[in-house]
Amino acid sequence: MYDLVIYNGLIVTTSHISPVDTWIGITGDKIVTIQSGKPPKDVGKRYIDAKGGYITPGGIDTHVHLQQLQVAPGEDTGDTFESGTRSATAGGTTTIIAFANQQRHDESLYPLVEEYHRRAAANGTWCDYGFHMILTNPTKKILDEELPVLFEKEGISSIKVYMTYEARRVGDRDMLEIMLRTRKLGMTLMIHAENDDMVQLVIDHLKENDLTEPHHHAIARTPLAEVEATNRAICLSNLVSSPILIVHVSSSAAMSRIRTAQNDLQPIFAETCPQYLLMLAEAMQPSGHGCGCSHGTEKTENKSFEGAKLICSPPLRESKDDLDAVWKGMINGTVTTFSSDHCPSAFDHPMGKKKGLQGGKADFTKVPNGLPGVETRLPLLMTYGVERQRISVQRFVEVTSTQPAHLYGLQHRKGAIAVGMDADIVIWYPPGEVKHDITNDNLHHSIDYTPFEGFEVSNWPRDNGGLVGRAGLGTYVKRIKGTVGHESRGETHLERITRMARA
Amino acid sequence: MYDLVIYNGLIVTTSHISPVDTWIGITGDKIVTIQSGKPPKDVGKRYIDAKGGYITPGGIDTHVHLQQLQVAPGEDTGDTFESGTRSATAGGTTTIIAFANQQRHDESLYPLVEEYHRRAAANGTWCDYGFHMILTNPTKKILDEELPVLFEKEGISSIKVYMTYEARRVGDRDMLEIMLRTRKLGMTLMIHAENDDMVQLVIDHLKENDLTEPHHHAIARTPLAEVEATNRAICLSNLVSSPILIVHVSSSAAMSRIRTAQNDLQPIFAETCPQYLLMLAEAMQPSGHGCGCSHGTEKTENKSFEGAKLICSPPLRESKDDLDAVWKGMINGTVTTFSSDHCPSAFDHPMGKKKGLQGGKADFTKVPNGLPGVETRLPLLMTYGVERQRISVQRFVEVTSTQPAHLYGLQHRKGAIAVGMDADIVIWYPPGEVKHDITNDNLHHSIDYTPFEGFEVSNWPRDNGGLVGRAGLGTYVKRIKGTVGHESRGETHLERITRMARA
Amino acid sequence: MYDLVIYNGLIVTTSHISPVDTWIGITGDKIVTIQSGKPPKDVGKRYIDAKGGYITPGGIDTHVHLQQLQVAPGEDTGDTFESGTRSATAGGTTTIIAFANQQRHDESLYPLVEEYHRRAAANGTWCDYGFHMILTNPTKKILDEELPVLFEKEGISSIKVYMTYEARRVGDRDMLEIMLRTRKLGMTLMIHAENDDMVQLVIDHLKENDLTEPHHHAIARTPLAEVEATNRAICLSNLVSSPILIVHVSSSAAMSRIRTAQNDLQPIFAETCPQYLLMLAEAMQPSGHGCGCSHGTEKTENKSFEGAKLICSPPLRESKDDLDAVWKGMINGTVTTFSSDHCPSAFDHPMGKKKGLQGGKADFTKVPNGLPGVETRLPLLMTYGVERQRISVQRFVEVTSTQPAHLYGLQHRKGAIAVGMDADIVIWYPPGEVKHDITNDNLHHSIDYTPFEGFEVSNWPRDNGGLVGRAGLGTYVKRIKGTVGHESRGETHLERITRMARA
Amino acid sequence: MYDLVIYNGLIVTTSHISPVDTWIGITGDKIVTIQSGKPPKDVGKRYIDAKGGYITPGGIDTHVHLQQLQVAPGEDTGDTFESGTRSATAGGTTTIIAFANQQRHDESLYPLVEEYHRRAAANGTWCDYGFHMILTNPTKKILDEELPVLFEKEGISSIKVYMTYEARRVGDRDMLEIMLRTRKLGMTLMIHAENDDMVQLVIDHLKENDLTEPHHHAIARTPLAEVEATNRAICLSNLVSSPILIVHVSSSAAMSRIRTAQNDLQPIFAETCPQYLLMLAEAMQPSGHGCGCSHGTEKTENKSFEGAKLICSPPLRESKDDLDAVWKGMINGTVTTFSSDHCPSAFDHPMGKKKGLQGGKADFTKVPNGLPGVETRLPLLMTYGVERQRISVQRFVEVTSTQPAHLYGLQHRKGAIAVGMDADIVIWYPPGEVKHDITNDNLHHSIDYTPFEGFEVSNWPRDNGGLVGRAGLGTYVKRIKGTVGHESRGETHLERITRMARA
Repeated sequence: MYDLVIYNGLIVTTSHISPVDTWIGITGDKIVTIQSGKPPKDVGKRYIDAKGGYITPGGIDTHVHLQQLQVAPGEDTGDTFESGTRSATAGGTTTIIAFANQQRHDESLYPLVEEYHRRAAANGTWCDYGFHMILTNPTKKILDEELPVLFEKEGISSIKVYMTYEARRVGDRDMLEIMLRTRKLGMTLMIHAENDDMVQLVIDHLKENDLTEPHHHAIARTPLAEVEATNRAICLSNLVSSPILIVHVSSSAAMSRIRTAQNDLQPIFAETCPQYLLMLAEAMQPSGHGCGCSHGTEKTENKSFEGAKLICSPPLRESKDDLDAVWKGMINGTVTTFSSDHCPSAFDHPMGKKKGLQGGKADFTKVPNGLPGVETRLPLLMTYGVERQRISVQRFVEVTSTQPAHLYGLQHRKGAIAVGMDADIVIWYPPGEVKHDITNDNLHHSIDYTPFEGFEVSNWPRDNGGLVGRAGLGTYVKRIKGTVGHESRGETHLERITRMARA
Repeated sequence: MYDLVIYNGLIVTTSHISPVDTWIGITGDKIVTIQSGKPPKDVGKRYIDAKGGYITPGGIDTHVHLQQLQVAPGEDTGDTFESGTRSATAGGTTTIIAFANQQRHDESLYPLVEEYHRRAAANGTWCDYGFHMILTNPTKKILDEELPVLFEKEGISSIKVYMTYEARRVGDRDMLEIMLRTRKLGMTLMIHAENDDMVQLVIDHLKENDLTEPHHHAIARTPLAEVEATNRAICLSNLVSSPILIVHVSSSAAMSRIRTAQNDLQPIFAETCPQYLLMLAEAMQPSGHGCGCSHGTEKTENKSFEGAKLICSPPLRESKDDLDAVWKGMINGTVTTFSSDHCPSAFDHPMGKKKGLQGGKADFTKVPNGLPGVETRLPLLMTYGVERQRISVQRFVEVTSTQPAHLYGLQHRKGAIAVGMDADIVIWYPPGEVKHDITNDNLHHSIDYTPFEGFEVSNWPRDNGGLVGRAGLGTYVKRIKGTVGHESRGETHLERITRMARA
Repeated sequence: MYDLVIYNGLIVTTSHISPVDTWIGITGDKIVTIQSGKPPKDVGKRYIDAKGGYITPGGIDTHVHLQQLQVAPGEDTGDTFESGTRSATAGGTTTIIAFANQQRHDESLYPLVEEYHRRAAANGTWCDYGFHMILTNPTKKILDEELPVLFEKEGISSIKVYMTYEARRVGDRDMLEIMLRTRKLGMTLMIHAENDDMVQLVIDHLKENDLTEPHHHAIARTPLAEVEATNRAICLSNLVSSPILIVHVSSSAAMSRIRTAQNDLQPIFAETCPQYLLMLAEAMQPSGHGCGCSHGTEKTENKSFEGAKLICSPPLRESKDDLDAVWKGMINGTVTTFSSDHCPSAFDHPMGKKKGLQGGKADFTKVPNGLPGVETRLPLLMTYGVERQRISVQRFVEVTSTQPAHLYGLQHRKGAIAVGMDADIVIWYPPGEVKHDITNDNLHHSIDYTPFEGFEVSNWPRDNGGLVGRAGLGTYVKRIKGTVGHESRGETHLERITRMARA
Repeated sequence: MYDLVIYNGLIVTTSHISPVDTWIGITGDKIVTIQSGKPPKDVGKRYIDAKGGYITPGGIDTHVHLQQLQVAPGEDTGDTFESGTRSATAGGTTTIIAFANQQRHDESLYPLVEEYHRRAAANGTWCDYGFHMILTNPTKKILDEELPVLFEKEGISSIKVYMTYEARRVGDRDMLEIMLRTRKLGMTLMIHAENDDMVQLVIDHLKENDLTEPHHHAIARTPLAEVEATNRAICLSNLVSSPILIVHVSSSAAMSRIRTAQNDLQPIFAETCPQYLLMLAEAMQPSGHGCGCSHGTEKTENKSFEGAKLICSPPLRESKDDLDAVWKGMINGTVTTFSSDHCPSAFDHPMGKKKGLQGGKADFTKVPNGLPGVETRLPLLMTYGVERQRISVQRFVEVTSTQPAHLYGLQHRKGAIAVGMDADIVIWYPPGEVKHDITNDNLHHSIDYTPFEGFEVSNWPRDNGGLVGRAGLGTYVKRIKGTVGHESRGETHLERITRMARA
């Protein structure tokens, strides 16, 4: 007797698509059988008829900021673990990985992890979750003593570093030291790659010229800053032969640089996000809506600061060439994983709209960088990727679930619909049944806007993902070593030195 | 009650690896269930204990020449359908696609297909099989009338053309006309890409200089001829936006050219074969064995013509850079499918060794091009790819089974271990159990040598693949339209013209 | 006592720019002295005050069709040697090289060369001239016996072949045989690179769709056909290590392919022409003028066939990217030489406008391909290149005179203003003195239109080049071996074979 | 009456080669006439018969360290202005540009320039000289006030910065600020591009493993550090559209990155030096001689620290691919200028050999980086470049004289043999007359070794350059704005901002 039987759908994995006369039997939180034919009437406590729609593995969103400490001074990220995972679940995402961030003055990571556990436990979560560790002060003690403990005890198998933001950026030497440890431990290293000095020069120049409207944000953070930092990270990785993931790749130049490295078998991976596929910087113009839609301009009166809703880093790009190149990376395999970079803050803020409109004076540099998006990620890609025939539904599964699982050490439990795996399952409507515009009223986060307001979607996880999936609250997931990028790749420059020393 | 239950193995698909406590239930020639845990004792007529080894989808070898008419004047290819499929099965290959070739004077393809059906039926086959059609005289009647019929009635969904060999090469205009039809019909087009004029110039020069030993074959067919033809095929494909597969890619330059096209989302696919991963042209030298092993030279006395055993086209390459580049393509995804190009002929021939040693005079130009290899393909890749840690076992499955299935219209039945699919299954020994050298005595083809004589293998399909798989003889497989390369890719140059004409 | 003294100008060579207080003394047709300061009053029979303008070496136009036999059936090219060289001289060109073309049935080149000598001598020429030989039937006799004779006796050190046009195209094997000879003899090989089969397929498709207006010509001859043939020519050249010049490069893809070869030290050279820098295919639209100007459309009524004035091969390109890429090649050094491809025919023709408008029915396929342009070449590049600050005046000299001289074996006499060189000199107006629109009335050819009608030029050779330069008529120039591309480049593939044969 | 007449030589410029029957008349320090024929007997005070040898413009060596303050703590560079210019002259170099370096604590550049003037004047110089300014502390005062003054008053039109060495490296923001000024002023910016953090990590690793012999220096400064910094400098340049010169390019990867930028018309220039063309790191092995020759090993006993003679930065490379790539850059035009990077120190030093062998313990990190080479630069390139047929003699002139002149604002006086230019002239022996090995005894610097000891040269400036050239001592040369890289290149990112601000 199974707890749940799902039948009459097209089960999609990266391997194949099962015909509709196949059914899945679930017991507890595991898939325990898959069988041919129609399910017998008496084997399940509950039955779900997928009605011919796709059945895909639950989404894994590995780039989510929830209740993150001091994202801006005195302020945490806008969504709690509770509201963020509710939103995730409603959009088909059944596992998220959030960030536990070190501040420059933190000398131990242990209290931070405890604090994030508390935060997640406070009101529970709707889906499974894990933590990445952000490092800003990589002392020897932290690198050599704490990281191995966190990996083994807590299953934290990934680290993130920033090459930008005054409060967070780490220098090349620190990056190298971190890489040496992630390589040794088999952890995944995520890098936010933008050259801070380049960005700051342009910001200073913009300020001198009194150009501080939201849309100037896109000018400030030029693609040149992204490709420089991307190349530098790749060169550092080459020196120590350490796998890295460049997060939220947004430009043609960076994507192309990463592809070249991949062609040469360097362990360089790329992440991108819906905003870089679907919106351009022009949406931040005073005449824009603060969303990427192509509606008329009649709504936009007196809304000149709406563009601040779209401020994220890297920014929406000015050139359609960049957007096309990100799509190309999605299609040709350069992109390893597709995340939301959900990092929301409210538009209405006591200090002024997005904190950047104070006393009538717009200043994009005061706006917290980041968008909400954990709920809309899968429906947008299903619509603009699969149904508009840019990618196959199998590639959809690959970048939203299978590869994130393999990249971050979840492959033993998640990323596929298969016997023995977690019963993280999304059922979609058959093509043609759904067609509506996204509106913030229908979303489940705690933020007062969505950047994708007005975007048409032509599918959505059935019943907001809520009726299916694991019963009860989500749980913390200890992760293992991922399988991506840890292949043997010959002797590294430093290993060679060690060998010479021994000879 | 299942006909067969397989348990206690690691089921591998491109999507995930199932743990050992999963079992498969097979009825007839289909997989009908997969379940968690140990199989009950009373559900199967027969049980196989996989003993912890990998369980992979049956190999699909899409480049096999069997009993092919007039491969050389008055002579057919060395293996029959019976002996060739016996050899395939013993090496873990459960489906082959062989070639039905048009001669220049053939004005209809129908009698040819009938003849090949007769040949395959004569003594039966050990595994499933299908036919590709080779075109050398693509008349309008054949293109417009016969191809659609062959696709629909016979399930022949692939065509092959040659850019080399006087008797077979087709010109650019003919290639374009064929591409227009394969695109329209959704057929897969295979191209043997070598510039014949370049090759002939070098051959003439070699002959003038009396350089006609077997190893001169590698000089004759320079990589320049391969990359030129590869680029030309890609340009022709670009003009009409027609997917193509470059078969048996052997050089760094050709591989790199294909990768560039793939990066730009052009529907260009690549095949390679074991010989291009494992052997260099030096093995054809008089001091070589006629195999790629690194044994001592004591065996090689008086064996100066042994190199002829390795004559194939494209040839084994002279530079290790080429071999490394083919491996790189295997690893980074450039290679879509991995085949044997099994095209054997006996070394001992009444007209002299390989027909090329007549009256003591060696002449490589008289040697039929082609090697046996259908049986050794999977064990070699499992050994030198997976177990030597160049590729993952999931990538092994991808290039030997999953992608061949999708590329050639078999994805509805083959390429994955999943409920509803054909029960084409290979069980491997656990790592460490097997270690032996390949020797022709142990192979099942009807050829008097193997080019891989003496190559160590560290795994082999359990019981020569014979105890598992579909009972009885193989059957002819009607294929459907593949899924690779037929995505929407915007308006083509010719479509634009049609649109202009309508405007 | 010098025949002529030129002073008070800025002498420009690729090496340096001399200050205005330098003067040149000329005796006969040679520069015999250059001196500092103002010229003494009594040293010259004649004095020219350059008034502070540039003094550049006389233009060398190495791609000029004059009185060419049977360019179209029953018809020769529009300008005679007399009218063509008059036009050249008026535009600052002091040396041209015209084509002597073999027809398929011609079994000897000698009578052809004689005929062209007769034609040139008939009414004399205004500037120096030489002949390239076009081969369409490269028999062994011609290659092995005649070419060496023509080089030695006639100073014909260059060959041209076509990869397109049914009546002229040569196959890959013939190209290779020709390359072997040009390499051995040190001749320069010019290649018109377009894949004829690709072009013909599109033309057939256009005709089937009744799209035969002039502007459809640009669609017919797609850049894909150019880059395919360019790559093929480069591959053939690689095989035999023979220098080649791709003439009239018009597209981004072809330019980029050539650059890659140059980066790798392959002896591949590029020519381009003014039309590919200044006009796009849209100028051929019915609403265009048949010129590249941006005038209003009021003049264009009933002029729907004017676009035929711009039909040349390769065609004007549709994308500004191509035009930009050709400029890039001009600036970064990819382009070795800048020619006119002067190949004119009258717009008014007894058989209908350009022979392509017959009985009211437009058919671009009947229009002779080619534009007049020998006179406008230098002023256009001086205006749009130098004065609009895309290239330096030294680069202007390099591509219009110095490199053409070195490429075609004229470096012993031409290409520089220096003591001992031919007194081929162009004096320009100081910047700002000249500004007018080009109009056919002011040109000196015998054609009834110019494609550059209405183009503004901001400089022109002083007095139409007529008062300066060599007195009297031009003479035939015997050329020697050029210096470009004949450096040592290691052993070739064929040389290696010869070496092996000897070992 | 000319002070000097030179005749009977082949005058070489980048534009052409004059025949031997041309003569040059010199008055004072200027070329005042060039004439055809043999010189009359009574026009010159002195005559030099060039005897059919090449006559080339005097070498310009723009990368020379002489008497440089505090190159190592408490120590200046090994050659004085007197000895260094003596050595330069003897090797055919008639102009050098030396470095005036700011220390971190220097708040004004003026006293530094005065000090260097004093040093140069102390004992006079044998050839002309100028100064580059090295910046390590680019304060606003220095950038905005002093640089314009130094350019205008002192003719210092070039700046150098370091991305490596703890005491000298400047950060990205400082580089950007400097680039903004050099662009605005039209100064040339030289960059030593190596990533210091990468180098330091490897050095630390080497020290931990006790690997500090001279040859470990090449491992410490990996090509990865060079290409990273090169790319970063190019990206920074792109942001502000400022021309830069990457000095002493030594690796394939860096050369290739520069070429790509040049192909795209970015104003990126490259310098290389003889050591990167002629020697590999293996010459630093204990079994090496401390020179790049291929002599037997019998001389090398007890010379294990000889390798320190070859320590420079970037180091000699380990792979022949790097050396080949530098040659390729010399040939295909990537390299703009060819310098010596003469930066010598004595091998015998009171603190131990090269200061790096103290108490029997070798430590390459204590060895001052740099080689002597100002005298051998031209003969080595004439021998290994021109006479071994890698480059033409015209390219030799281009990289040793013409382009250095244009790059550094000397083009109004130097870089060509032409009327009105400085009489900086080198006369070479006719091919075949000279053949000897370089030995330090025959050189004119004050250093106790040459890294090129034992290298065969097949030409040398006649009479050690001493009988020809400008009489008397060299003088300081005020430079103007160069002509390389200052073309218009469209609106920059920052200019766009200014424009937006105005709109």
